[in-house]
Amino acid sequence: MRARDLAEDYPLVQLTDDAFTAAELMAKFRRPGVVVVDADNRPVTVLPGSQVLRFVIPRYVQADPALSRVYDERGADACVTRLRGRTVNELLSAKDKRCELAEVSGTATVIECAAVMARLHSPLVVVRDGDRVLGVVTASHLLELLLS
Amino acid sequence: MRARDLAEDYPLVQLTDDAFTAAELMAKFRRPGVVVVDADNRPVTVLPGSQVLRFVIPRYVQADPALSRVYDERGADACVTRLRGRTVNELLSAKDKRCELAEVSGTATVIECAAVMARLHSPLVVVRDGDRVLGVVTASHLLELLLS
Repeated sequence: MRARDLAEDYPLVQLTDDAFTAAELMAKFRRPGVVVVDADNRPVTVLPGSQVLRFVIPRYVQADPALSRVYDERGADACVTRLRGRTVNELLSAKDKRCELAEVSGTATVIECAAVMARLHSPLVVVRDGDRVLGVVTASHLLELLLS
Repeated sequence: MRARDLAEDYPLVQLTDDAFTAAELMAKFRRPGVVVVDADNRPVTVLPGSQVLRFVIPRYVQADPALSRVYDERGADACVTRLRGRTVNELLSAKDKRCELAEVSGTATVIECAAVMARLHSPLVVVRDGDRVLGVVTASHLLELLLS
């Protein structure tokens, strides 16, 4: 069993794509993030949903639970408009850009995938063959294989 | 719309539960982690799948991709037996125990949930009413609500 056989589809965006579209993909596929690739289709990082929320929820609301409680639906609408006209690249934190991406080739074994995730504390590993992203393998999928 | 209406079922274990069972729950429900509660049912942390992998994959294999490549299926079986006879508490890293848990009450609004996740960089928030855990709300679910 190799990584290419285990890879699941995962939403994928380019650095220059619209930030709103990236958020829509996470919402539509109910995934905790999207894989971000550069202009040559090389995976750069995973943009997590929490980072999108950090961008849309004003900093003073994040810091004050009492304030977030009184925010109404119009406030929520205003939050989301902060994504308009922004790129995925603008959403990424310095840490997202700096961190080593958990990634393996399509021929990687189950243990190789598990070792990379373990070392990088990552909930998933991106599988790619050359300049093509095949999908991701999740920690829960690997555990299913290891325990069976 | 309140957190209690949005809460999804999520696997839940006690600190003293068997580590193997916790791993099985993640695998069975294909969730990236399990919520860990103490003897009084108070949520303590979320045990991520990657932390289980850190525990089962020997450190020298994590550090050496060439070594992980030659690990065969018997090696994988030996890895998994490391979970036997261990508790969830033994699996948790110092960081898992130290980190503030993303948690809200059942009456929290969408923006409150989003603010907590954003502040703590968390992919989910645990919802509880008193000493009862109602489930979790994920970042992708919140984005779905905020964008619609």
